[in-house]
Amino acid sequence: MDRKPVFLVVGGDLRQLYLAESLAEDNAVYVLGFERKLITSDKVMLPDSLISLHGKIDCLILPLPASEDGISVQSPYGRSQTLLADLADTVRDGGMVFGGKLSDEVLRGFTSRGLDTADYFHREELSVMNAVPTAEGAVQIALEELPITLFGSKILILGMGRLAKALIKPLLGFGADVTVAARKPSDLAWGRIFGCKAVSVSALDDVLHEYDAVFNTVPAVLLDGKRLSLLRHDCLVTDLASKPGGADLAWGQK
Amino acid sequence: MDRKPVFLVVGGDLRQLYLAESLAEDNAVYVLGFERKLITSDKVMLPDSLISLHGKIDCLILPLPASEDGISVQSPYGRSQTLLADLADTVRDGGMVFGGKLSDEVLRGFTSRGLDTADYFHREELSVMNAVPTAEGAVQIALEELPITLFGSKILILGMGRLAKALIKPLLGFGADVTVAARKPSDLAWGRIFGCKAVSVSALDDVLHEYDAVFNTVPAVLLDGKRLSLLRHDCLVTDLASKPGGADLAWGQK
Amino acid sequence: MDRKPVFLVVGGDLRQLYLAESLAEDNAVYVLGFERKLITSDKVMLPDSLISLHGKIDCLILPLPASEDGISVQSPYGRSQTLLADLADTVRDGGMVFGGKLSDEVLRGFTSRGLDTADYFHREELSVMNAVPTAEGAVQIALEELPITLFGSKILILGMGRLAKALIKPLLGFGADVTVAARKPSDLAWGRIFGCKAVSVSALDDVLHEYDAVFNTVPAVLLDGKRLSLLRHDCLVTDLASKPGGADLAWGQK
Amino acid sequence: MDRKPVFLVVGGDLRQLYLAESLAEDNAVYVLGFERKLITSDKVMLPDSLISLHGKIDCLILPLPASEDGISVQSPYGRSQTLLADLADTVRDGGMVFGGKLSDEVLRGFTSRGLDTADYFHREELSVMNAVPTAEGAVQIALEELPITLFGSKILILGMGRLAKALIKPLLGFGADVTVAARKPSDLAWGRIFGCKAVSVSALDDVLHEYDAVFNTVPAVLLDGKRLSLLRHDCLVTDLASKPGGADLAWGQK
Repeated sequence: MDRKPVFLVVGGDLRQLYLAESLAEDNAVYVLGFERKLITSDKVMLPDSLISLHGKIDCLILPLPASEDGISVQSPYGRSQTLLADLADTVRDGGMVFGGKLSDEVLRGFTSRGLDTADYFHREELSVMNAVPTAEGAVQIALEELPITLFGSKILILGMGRLAKALIKPLLGFGADVTVAARKPSDLAWGRIFGCKAVSVSALDDVLHEYDAVFNTVPAVLLDGKRLSLLRHDCLVTDLASKPGGADLAWGQK
Repeated sequence: MDRKPVFLVVGGDLRQLYLAESLAEDNAVYVLGFERKLITSDKVMLPDSLISLHGKIDCLILPLPASEDGISVQSPYGRSQTLLADLADTVRDGGMVFGGKLSDEVLRGFTSRGLDTADYFHREELSVMNAVPTAEGAVQIALEELPITLFGSKILILGMGRLAKALIKPLLGFGADVTVAARKPSDLAWGRIFGCKAVSVSALDDVLHEYDAVFNTVPAVLLDGKRLSLLRHDCLVTDLASKPGGADLAWGQK
Repeated sequence: MDRKPVFLVVGGDLRQLYLAESLAEDNAVYVLGFERKLITSDKVMLPDSLISLHGKIDCLILPLPASEDGISVQSPYGRSQTLLADLADTVRDGGMVFGGKLSDEVLRGFTSRGLDTADYFHREELSVMNAVPTAEGAVQIALEELPITLFGSKILILGMGRLAKALIKPLLGFGADVTVAARKPSDLAWGRIFGCKAVSVSALDDVLHEYDAVFNTVPAVLLDGKRLSLLRHDCLVTDLASKPGGADLAWGQK
Repeated sequence: MDRKPVFLVVGGDLRQLYLAESLAEDNAVYVLGFERKLITSDKVMLPDSLISLHGKIDCLILPLPASEDGISVQSPYGRSQTLLADLADTVRDGGMVFGGKLSDEVLRGFTSRGLDTADYFHREELSVMNAVPTAEGAVQIALEELPITLFGSKILILGMGRLAKALIKPLLGFGADVTVAARKPSDLAWGRIFGCKAVSVSALDDVLHEYDAVFNTVPAVLLDGKRLSLLRHDCLVTDLASKPGGADLAWGQK
């Protein structure tokens, strides 16, 4: 391919737009699904219409998840819908389609036209690296919400999976006093090796009152109503687990 | 002293109020200079009048700086002025007055009545520890403003004083790639020992374009117009130095 | 049990003796399988004979592995053999036997007499924590053998399992420039999150000449003759993997 | 200068030899004051005689200290003496002489022949960086001598100067529980910011029994007989201070 590859980046959140702007440094990049004012790079192109791109795209990049209804692209920052069927027509023969959590229905729409697809959600290293911005966001919340410094604060992390591991180093970097709570003794051992204190979930009730902030990373209701009532009233609880999450947030309203 | 000591905490910012609420856990504490809605502890007392406290206070705590005009307490969160002369009358014989940057004029007002005073601004350990919340605030700004993760970002710290030292560990905790710029070779050596890269100020111009964020901690105009023009347009510049600061912020407007 | 429990600690290396001396602070502890001069605590007891202990022991502690021949205890620091069959007679009815890698043959010898056994080798948290002293030993070797400081040295860790994870933090603490090599992209991602550089095993040949030291933690011959020849002649190679290890140590002799 | 510069490196310890071997990668380098078997690089040259080098040397490098008697070079690894006066003759007009702690007498010998001299001992950044190998040596001693892992061990550092600062990060990297003892409250504040606990020297007696190892970095007898008697009998004491050191090592013999 002597010419520059042509990308079409559609939908998703600002990370997707940032990706488009990065690609535009060295490639021809069209963007759809973002209001014009959000776009800061003048190297990114806005297509006049999808028909004008017919068969021109080498690589179509969809967000994570690509679609929530199986018909249109997930585009929270755009004003209008983009239909997957219309997008398929923009990709040239032999072109590629990337997306996250591609459903069978979505996949079929592309493969039936002979296009190659790749689901980046299944690449474990991306899931690992995805823990990094989530952890940074969680620390940012703590910096904003806690009335005290992270330095010297007592922080509890529930769980010892990817996100917990990504949270530990930043929190210790601030000089926080970090405790990891987990069920498995080997997870507690890792917590200690990584520089934290460790407490078994079975002994959690006795120490919950000690913490200034709790980060839950376990997708199970570890922080039920009883445990929430054992926290100090000014303890900051941040639930980072995927649904159903680990804090019974309806608790206070019952 | 068999009874609990009685404190009067006046003026200052929310840290001062937080101090009052902490002291109120174990002591009798009156507070002045904060709107009622800011007060979250019900153990803190609001005096009916200063006259009602006449001679009752064991320990008066003024903010940093205690006063900007030499007459009234610095009280940005209060609605009315509190006069230093009135406060002096509330302290019992043998009581103590704490404050920061107490001017000769302010000091005289208390010592002439036989009260002991202490200026906590002159305690170096407080200045050191004060670098911690400032550093945390600076990192919070970076988390909020940078469009990328701190992990993997390239950060430049100008200077190697207290604040710079307090910034390094949190930034490295996030996995940022931190460079320290200083004039003194020994400061560059410390930067390297603490886990950073180091660049002499004299060689700064050649590398300024590499950074995603710059924190200035030096109270001198290191970042003059020429150097600011060498930064990338999306580089986040945070000036943490006391006045006149180190970035020529009027530069773009000239 | 109103009286103090009675332990018999037999064989193993100095960690086992150290365990005995710790237990002896609060318990009655007999020790076998160590020369007298190695024992520093005067609270530890040496039995006159095994017969004198008949039925007196509440808890027998064997080393890891408990035995190499299925007949006698592994006792590299002792002068004489201790037979497992004789030991079984010392434990009272209802007593416990702890050991590591207890073979079926060894287990049968105890369970046939109605004794409870527990194999601590199968507790994953112990395997995790066991990585800590191994990692410290590896760093000690590097401190002793490298002609340069660990600060600023370029270190390669092959693998990203338990031992690799336990090695990273101490090496980074010294200010070493640590690279992790692994096959799985997710392991490379973890290496980066933990503060290292990361290189795929498939790209290893191009960078091997850069390192001052290599720690192998993978039980496969990653460092074959060809790769060893790509290392600098003064590169320190430490093989920490269980047999067959990862360096073809016979290579130079072929 | 079109040709490669010619160095003569004389005396000192193995660091000096290592310097010579590094320089020899890109320069012509003669070495004096080391037994032949210590030399591992074949790029380093041994002069036949000093007379054969007459006027040929661009840069003479002496050790730290350059001389102990003002007459000959300090050469603990050499078999014969090298006289400073003979060395002066080897340096060409306009050549340079580097050395550490050059006495007036030594300086005069070179400057009287019109040679430029530089004393690298007075460069503070070298003193700072010199703390790094000393700290690594101290940690190596602890790894060798302590019967327990550094992970989880309780370590006390006396002082908060260069060496103490260089010790903290490696020890914390191992997961040690590090306490800094100092007199100045600001030093205690720094200790805490750097991730340690802090204890005032005035309160030291009450906690000395807690530590597994003590590193003294203060050139004053902080650890007098009374304090040594308060340490546990198995506590490892390492004195890193310059003379007279901080531990009354004659104490047990009195």
